[in-house]
Amino acid sequence: MTKGITVKKAENFSEWYTQICGETGAQLVDLRYDVQGFLVHRPWSMQAFKKIYEFFEEEVEKDGHEPMLFPTIIPEEHLLKEKEHAGFTPDVYWVETAGTKKMDKRWALRPTGETQIYPIYHYWIRSYKDLPFKGYQSRITTFRNEMTTRPFLRGREFMFFETHNVYETHEQAKEQIKKDLEIMQKVIRDKLKIPFLFLQRPKWDVFKGANETFTSDSILPDGKRIQVSSTHDLGTNFSKAFDIKFTGRDSKEHYAYQTCFGPGIWRIFGTLIAIHGDDQGLMLPFCVAPLQIVIVPILFSKDEKQNNAILKECEKLLNELKDYKVSLDLSDRSAGFKFNEWEMKGVPIRIELGPRDLEKKQATVSLRTSKEKLNIKLTDLKKKISELAELNDKKLEDTANKYFKGNIKDASTLSEIKKIIETHKGFVRTPFCSVAMEGKTCADKLKAETGGVDVCGYLFEKQEKPTGNCPVCKKKATIVVYVAKSV
Amino acid sequence: MTKGITVKKAENFSEWYTQICGETGAQLVDLRYDVQGFLVHRPWSMQAFKKIYEFFEEEVEKDGHEPMLFPTIIPEEHLLKEKEHAGFTPDVYWVETAGTKKMDKRWALRPTGETQIYPIYHYWIRSYKDLPFKGYQSRITTFRNEMTTRPFLRGREFMFFETHNVYETHEQAKEQIKKDLEIMQKVIRDKLKIPFLFLQRPKWDVFKGANETFTSDSILPDGKRIQVSSTHDLGTNFSKAFDIKFTGRDSKEHYAYQTCFGPGIWRIFGTLIAIHGDDQGLMLPFCVAPLQIVIVPILFSKDEKQNNAILKECEKLLNELKDYKVSLDLSDRSAGFKFNEWEMKGVPIRIELGPRDLEKKQATVSLRTSKEKLNIKLTDLKKKISELAELNDKKLEDTANKYFKGNIKDASTLSEIKKIIETHKGFVRTPFCSVAMEGKTCADKLKAETGGVDVCGYLFEKQEKPTGNCPVCKKKATIVVYVAKSV
Repeated sequence: MTKGITVKKAENFSEWYTQICGETGAQLVDLRYDVQGFLVHRPWSMQAFKKIYEFFEEEVEKDGHEPMLFPTIIPEEHLLKEKEHAGFTPDVYWVETAGTKKMDKRWALRPTGETQIYPIYHYWIRSYKDLPFKGYQSRITTFRNEMTTRPFLRGREFMFFETHNVYETHEQAKEQIKKDLEIMQKVIRDKLKIPFLFLQRPKWDVFKGANETFTSDSILPDGKRIQVSSTHDLGTNFSKAFDIKFTGRDSKEHYAYQTCFGPGIWRIFGTLIAIHGDDQGLMLPFCVAPLQIVIVPILFSKDEKQNNAILKECEKLLNELKDYKVSLDLSDRSAGFKFNEWEMKGVPIRIELGPRDLEKKQATVSLRTSKEKLNIKLTDLKKKISELAELNDKKLEDTANKYFKGNIKDASTLSEIKKIIETHKGFVRTPFCSVAMEGKTCADKLKAETGGVDVCGYLFEKQEKPTGNCPVCKKKATIVVYVAKSV
Repeated sequence: MTKGITVKKAENFSEWYTQICGETGAQLVDLRYDVQGFLVHRPWSMQAFKKIYEFFEEEVEKDGHEPMLFPTIIPEEHLLKEKEHAGFTPDVYWVETAGTKKMDKRWALRPTGETQIYPIYHYWIRSYKDLPFKGYQSRITTFRNEMTTRPFLRGREFMFFETHNVYETHEQAKEQIKKDLEIMQKVIRDKLKIPFLFLQRPKWDVFKGANETFTSDSILPDGKRIQVSSTHDLGTNFSKAFDIKFTGRDSKEHYAYQTCFGPGIWRIFGTLIAIHGDDQGLMLPFCVAPLQIVIVPILFSKDEKQNNAILKECEKLLNELKDYKVSLDLSDRSAGFKFNEWEMKGVPIRIELGPRDLEKKQATVSLRTSKEKLNIKLTDLKKKISELAELNDKKLEDTANKYFKGNIKDASTLSEIKKIIETHKGFVRTPFCSVAMEGKTCADKLKAETGGVDVCGYLFEKQEKPTGNCPVCKKKATIVVYVAKSV
């Protein structure tokens, strides 16, 4: 089968993305399952997902979270218990028959974990000595009856990871927001090289049932904002609905404070593909690549002795590099075909070994992120790998950061915002009247007049001082917000 | 809360098992989810499950399997495609409403993976060059509408791990049976210290749609046989039903041969609890323990200076042992309470450090599997850990093996079988007329006359030569079988 992407990412991102995920691309998913929005995850994507899950598990465990696993189904009555949160109900799938028997009470396929976990936290939390309690569920999936679906960006069943924490005080809950930000920085910024803004959402756009919502937002190559994580400050809303109380240091009963955090595993992977990939295929950070190094023997001649010598050297290399994810491609395809294949799959380091290399006791090394070929002494190769991996990753990081930073623009009037959104991509930073509920009228007007630009939120890490007026109502601005079109 | 198991394992295994899993035991599950057979897995069990999954993932990957992930739901028409396999249909849960809309075609929550995976293998397998293909799904759950349920032994939703392999020839498929046996040996025998027989099932008891079924069977403390894995030789039954064909080396089209393998993750954990635990609580092999070492400071006096010196030494130890899963118990509970708690949770190594220890520059070390206390020099402790871990595990292994071997008895008449099953436990080895379909009449009769003894199968690893006659029909025996009452 001829592999390859037939469009340019810069010209038609949407089609490029579909192709890179599919059969003639990097074979990340199979869309032929016959049910819309339910994906088959192929080995190449699953190996990357395993790493991404491991990164998050490691970080949340370091922060004192313990693993748990709750059922896939939620009884309907639990789902309806928190009034605002019950807003999820119209989007869920219902199990209504068990075997051949219609059920008395129906179950939802879980749309998110709050209403399944908190009835049990009611039993687990008794005293301040039980707090803080930090639990997480990993490698699970969740379900929403979405109308439009795209691989890794929006699905009817998608990969999930969630933490659910309980504290004595609101201060402790707020401290967790910072820790969740740090986890996102460690995993998606430092390891996966995905730049993002950590924003506090305006009041009219918080999670159903939450007091405050904080998100990590990145920018896709088509300029659309994509949310890749959310942390919710639930206050005592859910602890009141689910009766999560503890005896405090004062011997009195108190409702507990809660937060929950969900890095969007699917969306993080989708964003990784989208941001780093090029017209030849995937580009992957070394730490997440299913195959980190591929060795390709170059066998031109019919000289059996020479070919055997090359193959022997390749086998030796394979053995030397076995601490990495390394493979020796001995298939009967041409070298050119192999190069294309492994470029499409995003293998960071390719090592070629041909007759001339053998003669010079060297290998020809290519990084996926660079056109340059390097000649490296065979005896030096092993100790050079970590340096080569860093070079590969540095290039990804620089390119991603340049794109990201170049697509956050300033504007102070509605017409400036419109102009930027039409000709540029990403976020526009602008003064705004208010992120409390009273600002919603301006946000709605902004959205209507710009063909769908949302007020995403304001920086959590630093308070930016606004100058001038709200571009919509012209009142004196109280805050600096980031607006963008969303996925 | 007072912790403890109020019955003896030897006297009332069933109640002992319920208690050790629950709130007053090792807190492995929470049964208060309000839906029968759907469990909440608490942190202590989830940490062990993570390790068990990792062990299997590591072994199947070494054997060339690649990870995949398929949807949780299966369209009804796929489930019905293989005639015998469609026998699962009466036991599944059906999703029939999406949001507020009744669906045209209903979906089953997956009862097992064949009918979701093989329609896609149809696309993936084209040529002998694509073979063998070995895929696996891990950390998933699966669903059956069981009437009776028990934690980790039988559930309506339970943890799942499955491999699905495709080969050119039947010989290659048969080779996989041996490899699956080796994987079970490496994980459950060598790591988890669970002894088992690897049996080929009689023809009347194979998996729906399979040619042959091979299982790993262990014995619970109540003498009941428990199946903890199965490998199925599917021949070309499913490749014909799902049209999985390849162009062979002869340029002709062939149906592919298939096997699938499922270690029962839940049942393995349940068996681990049941076999190793005692009246004080869990006992765990070192490799799977959520906490491997606990350090308990013994602070008798009000001498602050001495207490601080003890605590300082404990902190130092904690830091020295940080490559292990280690914890320093600084809670304000009594030392006795702490000892009981960590014994209940099955922590393999407990290190106490009191005034006398401090004076002698030693620690008092207890293994969970032994009553003996060891005095070990503080400077020697770190290098002694692996030896202590081995001692702990050796004791588990010896006890488990002794019980297992002591509960495989020989019999050659029906009355002998009856007598053994009444007074002893486990397997009875007996000559039998046939494991082909013609033997079923005798198996049914055996079951009826013994209050439920099954013919489990015959040894896969070695052919045992029968002497004498079938205890039921008195015809000359052709095979040696193992019979037992089952969970």
